[in-house]
Amino acid sequence: MREVRAASPADILALRRRLDEKTKPRGSLGRLEDLAVRVAAAGGRLDALDPVIVVVAGDHGVARQGVSAYPQEVTRQMLAAFAGGDAAVCVLARQAGADLVVVDAGVVEPVDDPSILDLRQGRGTTDFTAGPAMTRRQAEAALGAGLELADELAVDHGLVALGEMGIGNSTAAAAVAAALLECGPQMTCGRGTGLDDAGLARKVMVVEEGLRLHRPDPGDPVGVLAAVGGFELAVLAGLAIGAASHEVPVVIDGFISSTAALAAARLAPALPSRLVASHRSPEPGHTLVLGALGLEPVLDLGMRLGEGSGAALCLPLIRSSLAILEEMATFAGAGVTDAGR
Amino acid sequence: MREVRAASPADILALRRRLDEKTKPRGSLGRLEDLAVRVAAAGGRLDALDPVIVVVAGDHGVARQGVSAYPQEVTRQMLAAFAGGDAAVCVLARQAGADLVVVDAGVVEPVDDPSILDLRQGRGTTDFTAGPAMTRRQAEAALGAGLELADELAVDHGLVALGEMGIGNSTAAAAVAAALLECGPQMTCGRGTGLDDAGLARKVMVVEEGLRLHRPDPGDPVGVLAAVGGFELAVLAGLAIGAASHEVPVVIDGFISSTAALAAARLAPALPSRLVASHRSPEPGHTLVLGALGLEPVLDLGMRLGEGSGAALCLPLIRSSLAILEEMATFAGAGVTDAGR
Repeated sequence: MREVRAASPADILALRRRLDEKTKPRGSLGRLEDLAVRVAAAGGRLDALDPVIVVVAGDHGVARQGVSAYPQEVTRQMLAAFAGGDAAVCVLARQAGADLVVVDAGVVEPVDDPSILDLRQGRGTTDFTAGPAMTRRQAEAALGAGLELADELAVDHGLVALGEMGIGNSTAAAAVAAALLECGPQMTCGRGTGLDDAGLARKVMVVEEGLRLHRPDPGDPVGVLAAVGGFELAVLAGLAIGAASHEVPVVIDGFISSTAALAAARLAPALPSRLVASHRSPEPGHTLVLGALGLEPVLDLGMRLGEGSGAALCLPLIRSSLAILEEMATFAGAGVTDAGR
Repeated sequence: MREVRAASPADILALRRRLDEKTKPRGSLGRLEDLAVRVAAAGGRLDALDPVIVVVAGDHGVARQGVSAYPQEVTRQMLAAFAGGDAAVCVLARQAGADLVVVDAGVVEPVDDPSILDLRQGRGTTDFTAGPAMTRRQAEAALGAGLELADELAVDHGLVALGEMGIGNSTAAAAVAAALLECGPQMTCGRGTGLDDAGLARKVMVVEEGLRLHRPDPGDPVGVLAAVGGFELAVLAGLAIGAASHEVPVVIDGFISSTAALAAARLAPALPSRLVASHRSPEPGHTLVLGALGLEPVLDLGMRLGEGSGAALCLPLIRSSLAILEEMATFAGAGVTDAGR
């Protein structure tokens, strides 16, 4: 697997010191200062920031188990909507001044639109209650495709944000997270896009069944992705590692992209120091996964749409945090009296 | 006092319905949807949005009671830094694409800079432990100056955001909030820009003393502002009422601008429906004041700088929320299957 270098502790210290020289009481910009340090230490630079949001879509065999409030064809419809430019993430990306790259990692029926990047690994995954979601070779290919895409995007854009779409993918992510964190599926399963109590109970049972069937080794993240994951999860994991290997910040969105990042971090242990958690979703598994990655999210707006919507919303805050670091006056420069705290 | 019309309940309902037709599970954008409804119902329109942040500075006689970690001359230094363009709020306003208007409402020694708007009501207020902070006539003049400035700015900018600066002003705001909310000063006094335990205890005592001396009538907000307030607080209250009377959203920042808005809301009871709370500051009084205004803040980043820094950071989120409302596709328009929830 590609090497990811950890953000340097010396850099982090120097960045903190730089913020303490700014004309404001120490720490008075709160977590905006933490964000500035994290983004800058991860390689973010204001003048190199031309963010790209990569939305990766895939279908899930497990969707036929009734684990989503929406039918499977919605994945394809939303893929078309992303290409059309008026889905939520398109609107939010425009507002954030970010480019949007739409990837088909393997929906059942492809959308005929040249703006959609074809990284298809199959016609949706296999229902993981019947067999492995994909072969190990498919999982490796999806990871590799993500890595290669990151190689194309990372340096030019200076920051890569992750989004996803796929009916059933919060079930796959719940299974991956439960396997990697070695916890019960009731800890990682949530209502997704709107399950009722019966639907949530079914989702937990389905994930239990998949984990019982495959018993994936938590020490083998590729095996976990192959057994119960999804094409978009594996592509996102590859993207995260690839972008971080070029020393640019990687912004994760909600539960699904964060779980992809968790799998990636098991392959590249220094990855978390290059990650920015954009927001906290109400999915119970999200808080667990962020905790495992050691990340504190910037926004907490109860958003549970996915698509990269939270990541897009966070981009102006990221830019502003870097601007504070790079453009704000110091006590010495501005002739302002420092209380020395 | 100028009339402020409440945002229309029928508009609010229609806006909610419009969001429910968008290609996303109902409510899945969480509080971004609440924000969109609030801003649009308050009069916010994407194409009319050219936000202005008004930073109002004033000095406080009570500063000599040792209630701040910084000396009084810092107010003037920061006023000069705002005019210079590299204080925190300047950097953040640029990032948000917002204009910045810097107002001197009465610092001790004015800054000689033509870019600073002169709304001076005096050379700092009187120490309210010795006498009223200002005369009733000064308080009315400051309110009127804020109203007039809003008349100039509101329609052209489509949104007005409030910021402030003034050594000692969290003490004045704590006194105003305690008087209006009829609670003890220990509920509204916080560490401001960095008081230690002894400093905080002194601040509580100073506010107690001021309230005991003047016994301001909570039913008379102008009297409260005159007794224990500040020039910038009164100008901000006038700005809020004036902007809301033109039916544009008013974005409040931290404890001080929120307390000014609370005083304004006692004069114009429909005002809160035109307000947006940008962030929650760690000042304990801020949560009380926001609660009294019925507002839920968008950001919660532990920021306690003031200047309008939180309001500036919130502006891209406000713009994005309106873009979701105005630009995002509907289920019908996009041909996406709606699960009907």
